[in-house]
Amino acid sequence: MKVLVINCGSSSLKYQFIQTENEAVITKGLIEKIGGDAEFTFCRKNGEKVKKNLSVKNHTEALKEVIANLGEKANGFINSLDEIEAIGHRVVHGGEEFYKSVLINDQVIASIEKFSELAPLHNPPNLQGILSCREVLPNTKQVAVFDTAFHHSMPEKSFMYALPYEYYEKYLVRRYGFHGTSHRYVALKTAEFLGKKIEECNLITCHLGNGSSITAIKNGKSIDTSMGFTPLEGIIMGTRCGSIDPAIIFFLMKKENLSAKQMDDVLNKKSGLLGISGISNDLREIDQALDQGNKRALLAKELLIRSIRKHIGAYMVELGRIDAIIFTAGIGENECSVREKSLSGLEEFGIKIDPQKNESLKGKPGDFSTPESKIKALVVPTNEELMIALETQWVLH
Amino acid sequence: MKVLVINCGSSSLKYQFIQTENEAVITKGLIEKIGGDAEFTFCRKNGEKVKKNLSVKNHTEALKEVIANLGEKANGFINSLDEIEAIGHRVVHGGEEFYKSVLINDQVIASIEKFSELAPLHNPPNLQGILSCREVLPNTKQVAVFDTAFHHSMPEKSFMYALPYEYYEKYLVRRYGFHGTSHRYVALKTAEFLGKKIEECNLITCHLGNGSSITAIKNGKSIDTSMGFTPLEGIIMGTRCGSIDPAIIFFLMKKENLSAKQMDDVLNKKSGLLGISGISNDLREIDQALDQGNKRALLAKELLIRSIRKHIGAYMVELGRIDAIIFTAGIGENECSVREKSLSGLEEFGIKIDPQKNESLKGKPGDFSTPESKIKALVVPTNEELMIALETQWVLH
Repeated sequence: MKVLVINCGSSSLKYQFIQTENEAVITKGLIEKIGGDAEFTFCRKNGEKVKKNLSVKNHTEALKEVIANLGEKANGFINSLDEIEAIGHRVVHGGEEFYKSVLINDQVIASIEKFSELAPLHNPPNLQGILSCREVLPNTKQVAVFDTAFHHSMPEKSFMYALPYEYYEKYLVRRYGFHGTSHRYVALKTAEFLGKKIEECNLITCHLGNGSSITAIKNGKSIDTSMGFTPLEGIIMGTRCGSIDPAIIFFLMKKENLSAKQMDDVLNKKSGLLGISGISNDLREIDQALDQGNKRALLAKELLIRSIRKHIGAYMVELGRIDAIIFTAGIGENECSVREKSLSGLEEFGIKIDPQKNESLKGKPGDFSTPESKIKALVVPTNEELMIALETQWVLH
Repeated sequence: MKVLVINCGSSSLKYQFIQTENEAVITKGLIEKIGGDAEFTFCRKNGEKVKKNLSVKNHTEALKEVIANLGEKANGFINSLDEIEAIGHRVVHGGEEFYKSVLINDQVIASIEKFSELAPLHNPPNLQGILSCREVLPNTKQVAVFDTAFHHSMPEKSFMYALPYEYYEKYLVRRYGFHGTSHRYVALKTAEFLGKKIEECNLITCHLGNGSSITAIKNGKSIDTSMGFTPLEGIIMGTRCGSIDPAIIFFLMKKENLSAKQMDDVLNKKSGLLGISGISNDLREIDQALDQGNKRALLAKELLIRSIRKHIGAYMVELGRIDAIIFTAGIGENECSVREKSLSGLEEFGIKIDPQKNESLKGKPGDFSTPESKIKALVVPTNEELMIALETQWVLH
């Protein structure tokens, strides 16, 4: 099946056109700065990358540009719109309702709109993408693939906070977890690699990118994850603080005379690796500063590793028995030193890594544990777009 | 040495008069509701407990009552004030300055006052107790024993939050940790029990009471602890939420139209076991409701156990090798089911408990791991007052 995978942000539309049978990307591209003078980046058939400026008022116009580009005479990837057999949308928040991907209908649209309150930055543009597709390709089936769905299997003791119970009843304040598509994808790939059924796998999946989350997977199902009600909780991230003492918020709001909105911005946009290092939210730039002896760059990296180790430990105990610990996404796939330090010194608990093997896996999949290690340590590159295409196909067949 | 141990709250004064050589409590008591019609609870020489109503305006008057009671003719414990050889004070916050107990002088008093900003509910009454003692017993040496001191050994990567670095520089926003006197006491007792030097012990100490914290101890020193900038962070407690997604605070402040102060009160006073169960902050009452099939009571207990397990796991990975996991304080010493469920299913990681032994240790010290368990599981009753008395003696000799 040929699936158009769409991921809409507030002023962007990313797409991949994927052939599911051979898991091949036919083409992909990105329109940024939607709302005025936009930039369209796409690939020609010969692989050449092209950047084009054009005026794009809204997501519907953006989608029309994408479709036109796919069908362009000289350089097209389709001869007719029918060749877009289905559309798969990334949707961030599926609330408590969606435990799997679903065919989009009016009721699903209403629910996605309802959950905008829980993901005000993400669900509205995701929904806009869906509505634009309905307008431009009214006969094409659309599937919603939720970031939260994979975590729907968490038990109550993992998803509830120890807050007054009424906040859950009134506002559905609970842990939802995110990056579910990625955690699920690398879990399935890991099961293949281990030659086991996914239902028999206990895994800890570490999705470490600019946003990061770690998930405990028991018998193939998410039983806990580090992101919570929002993507702020858990691991230290590029600009997000992760878990902190909640009382710090009140202390700082008073000291710095900050509104709740301003404080929220500090924790989401000015903290994390950027806040500690004062250099960058990008670990590659922090590594450069670290090489030059910058102490705060070192501290930022040490804090990141500590927060990864603490979550791995927490989930080891939650799971009791583990087949593998998996690293994925930008940092997880490429930062060998983060992987090594996250798993070093754990021989007592059945994890023994091979530092040389680890160094050889820069952006490549593979096993960097020793043969005698009870728990495997793996790099598994994630592919959320492919997962969305596959989910779309599974829903429709 | 005979040490008078003092613990002052905002409207209370608790004391124990301790003979350090044989670690015996000569007598103890408590004055509550200081500031008006107070209640004085104390013990007679024959062990009889007496409750007396009296008017007590302030902590100085309260201390005078205590001293008078100690020296009372018919029922006294001392013949002259000189028999109070030293006074040991519990002081909650020692900031970044105090890494051990110290003899109190003007400079120490100024520092305790300075750190009131970090512990506004605790340091001012602690300080009041010190000033009252200076007035009433001007010639008696006084020692300050800080709740934070034991955690002073935490490395930077444990005590820093991933917030903008300037908040640490400007306001000393960092992890301090609390219950240090208790964690240190049970660590020392555990070393004795294991027949090892404390410098050779790697321990996880779980102080579980109405307030709870868990500490990772490496070579006898605290390297991480679950309470943070304030005692709100970490484990779920009687009325405190422990760690949550910080973004929940902004969501709820808006939804419920709460001020920062009101929200702070919700997280500190209306959450935790009380908030979830809707029944009580006391696990004994929750257990009763649980026996009657109350689902929210069950959920409250499950959340507590999950939060304990997650911290134990985090610290296992931080430590790499562990001699023993220790349970102490009200819940830790008495709730056998919490201990059992906190350590069950961890055989893969070297922990094997004996449920029958565990059941037999209700409020009593002992080992409830099996002989083959690599990591020992212990109950060690805490005794903060004795620790304060011993610390006072060590400072003065």
